[in-house]
Amino acid sequence: MRIAILGGDGYCGWATALYLSNKGHSIAIIDNFSRRLWDFELGVQTLTPIRPLPERLAVWQQLTGKSIETFVGDVTDYEFLASVIGSFRPEVVVHFAEQRSAPYSMIDQKHAVFTQVNNVVGNLNLLFAIRELSPDCHIVKLGTMGEYGTPNIDIEEGYITIEHNGRRDTLPYPMQPGSFYHLSKVHDSHNIRFACRIWGLRATDLNQGVVYGTLTDEVQMDEALINRFDYDEVFGTVLNRFCAQAAFGAPLTVYGKGGQTRGFLDIRDTVRCIELVCLNPADRGEFRVYNQFTEQFSVLDLARLVQMVARDKDLNVQINHVPDPRVEAEAHYYNAKHSKLTDLGLQPHLLSDSLVNSLIDIAIRYRDRIDPALFHPQVNWRVARNQRRAGVSTIAREILVGEELQGD
Amino acid sequence: MRIAILGGDGYCGWATALYLSNKGHSIAIIDNFSRRLWDFELGVQTLTPIRPLPERLAVWQQLTGKSIETFVGDVTDYEFLASVIGSFRPEVVVHFAEQRSAPYSMIDQKHAVFTQVNNVVGNLNLLFAIRELSPDCHIVKLGTMGEYGTPNIDIEEGYITIEHNGRRDTLPYPMQPGSFYHLSKVHDSHNIRFACRIWGLRATDLNQGVVYGTLTDEVQMDEALINRFDYDEVFGTVLNRFCAQAAFGAPLTVYGKGGQTRGFLDIRDTVRCIELVCLNPADRGEFRVYNQFTEQFSVLDLARLVQMVARDKDLNVQINHVPDPRVEAEAHYYNAKHSKLTDLGLQPHLLSDSLVNSLIDIAIRYRDRIDPALFHPQVNWRVARNQRRAGVSTIAREILVGEELQGD
Repeated sequence: MRIAILGGDGYCGWATALYLSNKGHSIAIIDNFSRRLWDFELGVQTLTPIRPLPERLAVWQQLTGKSIETFVGDVTDYEFLASVIGSFRPEVVVHFAEQRSAPYSMIDQKHAVFTQVNNVVGNLNLLFAIRELSPDCHIVKLGTMGEYGTPNIDIEEGYITIEHNGRRDTLPYPMQPGSFYHLSKVHDSHNIRFACRIWGLRATDLNQGVVYGTLTDEVQMDEALINRFDYDEVFGTVLNRFCAQAAFGAPLTVYGKGGQTRGFLDIRDTVRCIELVCLNPADRGEFRVYNQFTEQFSVLDLARLVQMVARDKDLNVQINHVPDPRVEAEAHYYNAKHSKLTDLGLQPHLLSDSLVNSLIDIAIRYRDRIDPALFHPQVNWRVARNQRRAGVSTIAREILVGEELQGD
Repeated sequence: MRIAILGGDGYCGWATALYLSNKGHSIAIIDNFSRRLWDFELGVQTLTPIRPLPERLAVWQQLTGKSIETFVGDVTDYEFLASVIGSFRPEVVVHFAEQRSAPYSMIDQKHAVFTQVNNVVGNLNLLFAIRELSPDCHIVKLGTMGEYGTPNIDIEEGYITIEHNGRRDTLPYPMQPGSFYHLSKVHDSHNIRFACRIWGLRATDLNQGVVYGTLTDEVQMDEALINRFDYDEVFGTVLNRFCAQAAFGAPLTVYGKGGQTRGFLDIRDTVRCIELVCLNPADRGEFRVYNQFTEQFSVLDLARLVQMVARDKDLNVQINHVPDPRVEAEAHYYNAKHSKLTDLGLQPHLLSDSLVNSLIDIAIRYRDRIDPALFHPQVNWRVARNQRRAGVSTIAREILVGEELQGD
C-alpha cells in the first residue's frame, strides 16, 4: 500500500515508517522536525543519539534496498499538505504529526494556544486535503487514552449506548481530558467524526495508551536507525523515565500516591496496530475508534517493577513520591476496553521483566547523556505561567540531585 | 456590577450591553468589528441600518446619561485582552466574541480553520487572562444548542448520569455538532470545563437556541440604537429570514422537509438570561451549563406561522422546500431540557403572532435594503470548497428571483 506517515521522524512515527517499509509498503515521511526543535527549546535531548533523517534513510536504503520518500514541511500549511497528498497519492495517511506532550501544553498561554492550534489546524487541513484530493484514502489518526479521563464507569471504544428516560442511543463516549494537549485530541476526534459524516471519509481514531520501549526489529538493524528515548519530565513517558532514573541511580519520581492507572503498550505493538488498521480500513463514512493499549498499570506498579528488576542488577533504586504537578485523581476506578485491535489479530507484547531489564541496559549504555535535572517535574498544572526554560534545568541540576538522593 | 461584554457590537452583544447598562451596571464593550467586516466580505448587510459604535454609544449617553467604555481590539491577541481585563477589572465577562455562523464556517478550508482558531484561541486567551489577572471573575460563555446535535434521547443541560455495567457516573453530555462552527463551541466547552477544574475558575456555558427578533426596550429608544437584523443565508437566523422573505414577497426557503427541530428564543429573553446568570454566579471551580431557549419548533412550523401571519396582512407567501444544503436529519426526535434559567427567574416571551407581525413590519419598513439573492443557500456542507463570494450574489440575483417565484 501507499502509506504517508505524518510525523514520521518522531518516536512512534519513525518506528512505524521502518516497520511498514520493511513489510513492503511504499512509505513517505512528512515532517517539519518540530520535535527536534522542542528539544532545543527545552534544553533536553533524547537519551539515545538519533541521527538526522536523511542519514537514517540512507542507511535504511543501504541495509534493505528500500527507499522512503521525504516531504519536509508543516501540516498546518494547507498548500504544502495538499501538494503532498496530490503528488504521493496515499491509500492511507497515518497522522502522528501533533504536539504530543501534556506538560508542554501546560507551560503557559503560548504553549497551550500553540498546541491546540497546531494540532487542530493540522488535522483540519488533513480532512480538507483528503476530501478535495483523495476522498477514498483512509485516515489513521493517533488519539490518546487520555481523552477519556478517569470516569467512574467502564471506558468503551469511542462510543457508548445510553438508556435514558425510556429511550436509547449510541453516542460518542463523553470525554474528560486532563491537559490542553489531551483536549486538542478531543477536538480532533470531534472534527474527524463530523468530516466522516458529511463527506463520507473513512477514518480510524487510535486512542493510544502510554508507549514504552525503544527497540523494534527494524531500528535494531543499525545504530544509525536508533529511535528516540525520552526520559525528561516534559516528553518522557513514565516507564522510560523510570528506567533512566534507575540507570542513573536517582530515585523514581512517582507523582503523588501513584495510584493513577493508565493503559500502556510496547512500541512493537504500536507499529503492529498501525499495520493491522491499514490492512483493515474503515468503510466510507465510518469513524472507528479503537483503544490502542495492551495492559493497565498504575504508576506505582511500574515504579515497583523497575525497582525490582533494578535490584536484580545490583542497582539500589528508591521510589520518591513527589507532589503531583498535575490535577488528576491519584486513586480511581479504571477499566478500559481494548478488544478491537486484538480482534483484528494483535498479539500483545506484554510488559516483562526482561523488557524492563533491556530498557535499563539501554539507559546504562547512554548514561553519560542523562541530565538528572530533567527528571523533576517543572510544569505545574495549577499555575498559568510556568517558568520552565532551558536555563532552569542547568541551575536546578545540583539542587535537585541533592534533594532526590535523600530518598523518601 | 462591572461587566465586560466581549463582542458587544454584535447582534446579541449590543442588546445585552444596553440592557445591562440600563439596569445600572458598569459596562465595557470589547470588539474588533469583525462582524461588520464579514458583511463586506460576503456582500451582505443587515436589514436594519446600524450605526458605527461610537455614534451608538454617544446617543445612548445622551438619552440615558450612562456611558459604556469601549476597548477596540481582538480577543485572539492575548496582550490586548489581558490589558483590558487588567484595567477594567470586570466581575463578569460575557463572551459573545466568536464567529457564530455555521454556513460561514463551511465555506471552505480557510473559513473552517479561521472559525476554529478564532473561537478556540479567543476563548483560551480569556481563560488564561482570568486565571492570571482576575481569578474570581465569573465567565459567562455563549455556547449553542447545536453542540448537542439531535440525539435519540432527551437532551439534558450539559451533563448526563449514565448507568453502565453496574456502575454510575455523571459525565459531560455527548456532543454531536453539525458544522465546523458548532464544533468550535464544543471545543470551547471542553476547554472551559478543564480550566474550571484545574484553576478553580467559575464559568457558565449558555447553550443558546436560535435567537429571533431585533427589538428590546433599549434599542427602541432611538433609531440610532437599532440592532442588527440579519436575513441572509450565512448569518441570518431562520425566523428573521422568513420574515424578510415574507416582506419581500419571496417564498420562504425551507431546507429539505423542514422537520429539523431546534430550540428558539426571543432576543429579549437572551438579555434577561444573561442578567440572571450575572446576578447568580457559578461557584469557584464550577462549570455550569444552561440550555438557553424557551420553546422548540420545527423549521416548517415557523414557516407556516409566518405564512399565516403574512396572510392576515394580505401578503401571499409561499413555502419552498429547497434541497437541504446541510447534512442533518430532516425529521428526528428532539426533547431538550431548559428549566435551569426558568428556575433562576426567567419569564419567557413566547413566540406570538404579534411578534412575527412586528418582525414582518420591520422588514417591510426596510424592504429597499433587501437583496433577494441572499435568501438562497449558497454554502453546501457536502463540498469542501464553496464558491460563495460577494460577486456571486449579484449574478445570482436575477436567476434566483425568477426561480423562487415559481413556488413549490
